[in-house]
Amino acid sequence: MSNNFPPLKNDLFLRALRGEDVERPPVWMMRQAGRYLPQYMELRGKYTFFERVETPELACEITLQPIDELEPDAAIIFSDILTVPQALGIDVQMIQGKGPVMGNPIRSVDDAFAILAEDVPEKLKHVMDAIHLTRMELNGRVPLIGFAGAPWTLFCYMVQGEGSKDFNRAKSFLYRHPEASRHVMRELTTATIDYLRAQVEAGAQAVQLFDSWAGLLSPEDFNEWALPSLMEICSAVKEVPVILFAKGAWYALERLSFHSNAEALGIDWTITPEYAREKTRNEITLQGNFDPSHLLAPIPEIRKQTRRMIQRFGVRRYIANLGHGILPHVPVDNARAFVDTVKEYG
Amino acid sequence: MSNNFPPLKNDLFLRALRGEDVERPPVWMMRQAGRYLPQYMELRGKYTFFERVETPELACEITLQPIDELEPDAAIIFSDILTVPQALGIDVQMIQGKGPVMGNPIRSVDDAFAILAEDVPEKLKHVMDAIHLTRMELNGRVPLIGFAGAPWTLFCYMVQGEGSKDFNRAKSFLYRHPEASRHVMRELTTATIDYLRAQVEAGAQAVQLFDSWAGLLSPEDFNEWALPSLMEICSAVKEVPVILFAKGAWYALERLSFHSNAEALGIDWTITPEYAREKTRNEITLQGNFDPSHLLAPIPEIRKQTRRMIQRFGVRRYIANLGHGILPHVPVDNARAFVDTVKEYG
Repeated sequence: MSNNFPPLKNDLFLRALRGEDVERPPVWMMRQAGRYLPQYMELRGKYTFFERVETPELACEITLQPIDELEPDAAIIFSDILTVPQALGIDVQMIQGKGPVMGNPIRSVDDAFAILAEDVPEKLKHVMDAIHLTRMELNGRVPLIGFAGAPWTLFCYMVQGEGSKDFNRAKSFLYRHPEASRHVMRELTTATIDYLRAQVEAGAQAVQLFDSWAGLLSPEDFNEWALPSLMEICSAVKEVPVILFAKGAWYALERLSFHSNAEALGIDWTITPEYAREKTRNEITLQGNFDPSHLLAPIPEIRKQTRRMIQRFGVRRYIANLGHGILPHVPVDNARAFVDTVKEYG
Repeated sequence: MSNNFPPLKNDLFLRALRGEDVERPPVWMMRQAGRYLPQYMELRGKYTFFERVETPELACEITLQPIDELEPDAAIIFSDILTVPQALGIDVQMIQGKGPVMGNPIRSVDDAFAILAEDVPEKLKHVMDAIHLTRMELNGRVPLIGFAGAPWTLFCYMVQGEGSKDFNRAKSFLYRHPEASRHVMRELTTATIDYLRAQVEAGAQAVQLFDSWAGLLSPEDFNEWALPSLMEICSAVKEVPVILFAKGAWYALERLSFHSNAEALGIDWTITPEYAREKTRNEITLQGNFDPSHLLAPIPEIRKQTRRMIQRFGVRRYIANLGHGILPHVPVDNARAFVDTVKEYG
């Protein structure tokens, strides 16, 4: 693949990640190429979820939709965290109204030891193709973010076999079969490192690591089962900045900021900006943390709360974002009010 | 109803609530009369959920099942937090495999203003009858706990119309219709006070207030929408100790311990004992916080972790419990290992 990419015109997002001075915070939204956009819903009627993920032209088109519509300061490739379990031999179906369902979840110690991280970038070549194509098509308008799910979160789906409020089947597998679980975590860590490095080589200018279910673990279990993989992955990806979002792990903020080697931490909306700045001693870029359901409030209220959030985090070392993915029923004008308020700040 | 109750033989739980010296911590389990018990599953095959809740003899029998089987230090009446919405005119169906579904959820401002707290204790007389009968049948073996859902959590179900990961319909209703939402919270607060006072009159020797969805709110929203009701309810119930369990509201521990007027705070498993003791300055009884999924670990591991939990919380001002309700698939022997380890402590 050619790496002769068009020059970057808006580097605000990368400057904020590096902790440089900025005139205002950059803004993007998690899951911004999502179900709130009418142009996305149109494609959703024509192609299945994994057709959209696995066809580089479609993934590129979907990634660019919110960039054209809302003009945020970064694009995030349209894909899914469950691509890695797929590359490890787990069959994933996306069932409408229910979410992901695995055809062959890990149910035994033998199933667990059968998981091997082999040729992950080759098996997920469609993602690299989508990233390369999108980087070209973006034409330097904004940086492109790649991403992956963190090992603990992927383990949850691979063992539970479907979405869950508490992923108790996955948690009890941990406690009953620690060696087999450790094997899966190691393979997932290797797979994720290979995958993120390949994304960077294909053109990703930053990557985000999503540990969406970190908050289901006690602090002790987080230290034992989630943190080592996060540290290893963040340390292994050196070429571009890594944003680490361990949702719900408020208790680990201090450790993550000083020991994870991430360049930035994602923050959910249960954490106040003051608490996050105090625990991270203002030494790391923070990203977040607008409550996604607040985008369903009246627009003047969205504007007021967005400004207040920036005031509390401060302009420097800060990336304005939601505290979790955007919700399906958010009116586009409400999402626009959020993005515009950040862009008009200062 | 006669209040000529048999004398209490085991007052350990009440002494811990009052902060008195104890030889070991008392122990009970949230949702202890639940789906992990074979004798409960047998009744479940014969009667619908609300038949079990609404027939005092059945509710009494179910409440006593875990007392006979595991001999914890307190009984909690078998009932449901959605009895109060029912008394306010919301139709609640319990659908197997799905959970509660409301036939007529709050969908408009008019629906919200139609909610009125009238004659709640009279409408829920079956609960008082169950409490009175159970107190008699317990024959003083252990104290009987009554309970209610907190207004914010009940509002979630009444507006969302069913269980949800994020209750976004309920949250957006708050932000779009603050006056109508405030009306519902006020009525729910009145209803809950009347309900808990009637439970005490019927024989409850302590009550627990469950704000199960507190953790979905940002700290600011919690202060605005959940905390005022909690304070009002805890202050209004003076005759017996109140345990307040605002699950997920780690950020509010300090405020809850000094401003809620509760006698004890429930703690979920994402909060370390050290953090909880520090924030509450060791001045309130704490209850919790064993991760319910750890009851699926091998029994020696359960015993080890249970002892460690007590060591960390300390023996005084502490009630050993889970950090959330017991899970359906827990083997009875594992639940017994938890209870027995606490009882053998020291």
